[in-house]
Amino acid sequence: MTIKPVRPQTNDSRWAGAKEMRYKAEGTAPFRDITRQVLFQDPALACELRYFEMQPGGYSTLERHEHTHAVTIQRGAGRVLVGDRVHDVREHDLVRTPALTWHQFRAREDAPFGFLCMVNATRDRPQLPVADDLEALRRDPAIAAFIRM
Amino acid sequence: MTIKPVRPQTNDSRWAGAKEMRYKAEGTAPFRDITRQVLFQDPALACELRYFEMQPGGYSTLERHEHTHAVTIQRGAGRVLVGDRVHDVREHDLVRTPALTWHQFRAREDAPFGFLCMVNATRDRPQLPVADDLEALRRDPAIAAFIRM
Repeated sequence: MTIKPVRPQTNDSRWAGAKEMRYKAEGTAPFRDITRQVLFQDPALACELRYFEMQPGGYSTLERHEHTHAVTIQRGAGRVLVGDRVHDVREHDLVRTPALTWHQFRAREDAPFGFLCMVNATRDRPQLPVADDLEALRRDPAIAAFIRM
Repeated sequence: MTIKPVRPQTNDSRWAGAKEMRYKAEGTAPFRDITRQVLFQDPALACELRYFEMQPGGYSTLERHEHTHAVTIQRGAGRVLVGDRVHDVREHDLVRTPALTWHQFRAREDAPFGFLCMVNATRDRPQLPVADDLEALRRDPAIAAFIRM
């Protein structure tokens, strides 16, 4: 397959030649109103670049893994839990999730929220929190109020 | 060194904790009015994410290399040569430069032009065109008019 050298963005959140995909299979993990597009996935590149977008009120799965996320906010503003703190982020801010660090992205209630995520092509599968993990996270009231399951 | 989980963009083209660097050492290759910032460079990641920005009239070096560039336009609009064609690109468009393919990015004369570039952390050095390469490129009048040396 020949990849075209230039693929234009066709509207605020879609690209020519990038298929909108399910974020994850339904029922495998908690998430809401979030889609995934793979923008760059190439045997010549050791990483992939994906675009995730949440509708108002949407959120990604609360999870952790050995691999690192390198995120650039592309659209709107939202909030993200990384480890022990919830951060406000907006367009063009950078977010890094280190190894084995709990993280979750959430859109505001009034606008969509989109970001690019660079990730190693070869990576481990995400881990979901068990009851003990959730109990530990919820000891912090700000985190307890933020996380969605 | 601890990398902060969130690094805000501080103005249209700068980030907290990202040092603005020279694009290349002066005199090593032709280029004009272009800066480089490394946004993500991490032993846990097999790629790096850099941000390049050109001032009006600026351009990157006409070059090629074995490694592939995965580019997302972030600011403004400009033009890019990839192989045998010059493309108009604007904010959020995607550009891929395949292995050993001549490429050059150019800002318009009236506005800055910025893009993210994902690249393998381990990569070969760029090759500059020799006289025969330039002669071959210039056989196409559109390319002859576009390239800057």
